[in-house]
Amino acid sequence: MKAVGVVVEYNPFHNGHYHHIEQAKKVTNADVVIAVMSGHFLQRGEPALIDKWHRAKMALQNGVDLVIELPYIFSTGQATHFAKGAIELLAAVHCESFAFGSEQGNIEPFLNTQSLLNDYRDEYNNLIKYFVSTGISYPQALHAAYEQLKLKRPQNYIDLGMPNNILGFHYIEAAYRLKHKIMPVTIKRIQAGFHDDINSQLTIASATGIRKELFDRESLHHISQYVPASSYAQLEAWILNYQCFIQWETFWPLLQFSIIRNTPEELTRFADVSEGIEFALVKHGKNSDSFAQFMSLIKSKRYTWTRLQRMLTHIYTGITKEQLHAFTSPTYIRLLGMSSNGQAYLSANKKNFELPLISRVASTKDPMLALDIHASDMYSLGVQLASNKKIEGDYNTPPIRI
Amino acid sequence: MKAVGVVVEYNPFHNGHYHHIEQAKKVTNADVVIAVMSGHFLQRGEPALIDKWHRAKMALQNGVDLVIELPYIFSTGQATHFAKGAIELLAAVHCESFAFGSEQGNIEPFLNTQSLLNDYRDEYNNLIKYFVSTGISYPQALHAAYEQLKLKRPQNYIDLGMPNNILGFHYIEAAYRLKHKIMPVTIKRIQAGFHDDINSQLTIASATGIRKELFDRESLHHISQYVPASSYAQLEAWILNYQCFIQWETFWPLLQFSIIRNTPEELTRFADVSEGIEFALVKHGKNSDSFAQFMSLIKSKRYTWTRLQRMLTHIYTGITKEQLHAFTSPTYIRLLGMSSNGQAYLSANKKNFELPLISRVASTKDPMLALDIHASDMYSLGVQLASNKKIEGDYNTPPIRI
Repeated sequence: MKAVGVVVEYNPFHNGHYHHIEQAKKVTNADVVIAVMSGHFLQRGEPALIDKWHRAKMALQNGVDLVIELPYIFSTGQATHFAKGAIELLAAVHCESFAFGSEQGNIEPFLNTQSLLNDYRDEYNNLIKYFVSTGISYPQALHAAYEQLKLKRPQNYIDLGMPNNILGFHYIEAAYRLKHKIMPVTIKRIQAGFHDDINSQLTIASATGIRKELFDRESLHHISQYVPASSYAQLEAWILNYQCFIQWETFWPLLQFSIIRNTPEELTRFADVSEGIEFALVKHGKNSDSFAQFMSLIKSKRYTWTRLQRMLTHIYTGITKEQLHAFTSPTYIRLLGMSSNGQAYLSANKKNFELPLISRVASTKDPMLALDIHASDMYSLGVQLASNKKIEGDYNTPPIRI
Repeated sequence: MKAVGVVVEYNPFHNGHYHHIEQAKKVTNADVVIAVMSGHFLQRGEPALIDKWHRAKMALQNGVDLVIELPYIFSTGQATHFAKGAIELLAAVHCESFAFGSEQGNIEPFLNTQSLLNDYRDEYNNLIKYFVSTGISYPQALHAAYEQLKLKRPQNYIDLGMPNNILGFHYIEAAYRLKHKIMPVTIKRIQAGFHDDINSQLTIASATGIRKELFDRESLHHISQYVPASSYAQLEAWILNYQCFIQWETFWPLLQFSIIRNTPEELTRFADVSEGIEFALVKHGKNSDSFAQFMSLIKSKRYTWTRLQRMLTHIYTGITKEQLHAFTSPTYIRLLGMSSNGQAYLSANKKNFELPLISRVASTKDPMLALDIHASDMYSLGVQLASNKKIEGDYNTPPIRI
């Protein structure tokens, strides 16, 4: 059996994801689709709309055969780290290829960019330093250095200003560093841009657009055309049980508590909290009545929204720099769910996996897994605050089977 | 003008407190009553029923002329520390005497006990060691050592098994160590024991009994006979604004979050958290749905209820062992409120006070005061969680004047 891997958040699963899975299978001629999915805290530094169990079910009902959890330290990491954890996990479960979405749907420019930056690494770094010294911002310097470097070897390259392209580039970079090769494939994204609002004429919308609709309209039926019926059913089941979808605003009383309980100095212990911002965090944390107000007060040119949210994620979960930087590679394969097809794949292959397959957590001494469980506990407290109901615990939930 | 001091929590102010103030003035022939009052977290390790501003107002409306805040590190400390902070503050504002409540209303046995333990300090410690070595518990060993010591010099002594007596003893001990003497006086407590339930035939009930009634019956009018009309009005004003009285149960979602966000190892950083209990705190913190359930799970013979609650106070506020143990004496006099009489006293005396008088906090570099402000912020977050309303902030509330 041949497996293709995908790296996902499914926040929530929508028609675009469905299309991606179908195409990934078709293009790679794979028998099995394996998704490495983020748990409860995501790459943009946000808690997931609904818990990982509901999201895993959506995936399995729509063509994914195995759902593997991307550990917290990678799922909340910067693009390089996120991509490295995900690709290494896909390699660990012996995927022959992995497929990611991109604007142009052509793998060549990605490979060209990767090989260019790899071949001229020192020169690239020197160019960045030079441009930074001229007084422009770091992202601007990166861009200028890249533009300059491209002139060395005129080819078709990707635009590193697009969020999906950056992730794709890091996937390829991570795959390139692996001992056992895994083939990159890219699938053209259709209709909706990464952050686009929804458009009622289409059946595909971005997850960001769908979430916005869910929060703004406080009703489900406006998004029904953008998600498979089974996804819709999962969203409906969630809202019936928990009364609200999850966003930082939902967790605000706990987030605020976690910010202002610390002295500014203590805040800098937490992962991704850069020196200098701690005073603003505490000061504005005290004076804000909502997450929106807080973000408007701490946002500055110096920090992107995503970067701020990632700091807040680690402050909320209490994960320190030391904890986050203790690992560079996944140490286990955490199974969240499987189809019968996925189960057959596991039976045939798991004895050769390089990492232990964990399908149920009784207790663990693995510190990386302990962080995942901790992150779930913290997510659950936030959900409880809003709904008075817990989510399924990591200790007692077996992998979902469909 | 002659001042008598009292050490209080007024949680809430009741007829027994009124009686105590009247008697204290009468017995000492004082013109002014100065109360050193705990802020938002109290000696038994609990958040106050209502905030310090409402409690200060109750005091001023019922015969107290100046309300000085007992800093957090003393108000939440063990009896020795609590008493030391309070008596030193009363001395700092030049009280000639201080009056505390006791069961027998006679100061002599207190002085006898203090002098006995002082004269035979080494022998007392050796006796304690000996009794501990026979296998009995530490409180039992203390008791046995004291009984043995009393035989040395037969006199009238206090029973150190009574909570008010222990506090009284520590007040006298603290006063004894002061350079400028302050005279101890004790006022006989009338009608209600420290923890007694209320009795509808009486007009005096313990604060514990009154709080129990407030929480059990969820109505105010059952307690009207036990509190002055002005106290009743303050309680009524509070409940109208904040919808509930404050207890740990009110703060539970935040307390639970503050417990389980840490690893057990990290919990031991917080003040009063003894080594060994951290695992139980985290484990039961995860599995409890209420404060009552949590306490029933962590309570054991080894720790008293008060001791556990004090740990939880410091975990909730995030105050570490290092922060709590950085101070042994108050460094300022924080004025919460004054009557016109109290104001006249201040005008006449404040230039001679040994500590700075702080009547308004704009910003502070005093680390002890910063902890008080922090404790208020944390109390306010808990109140907000329940009522969506903040309490008066430490930065913008001037002393109450009546």
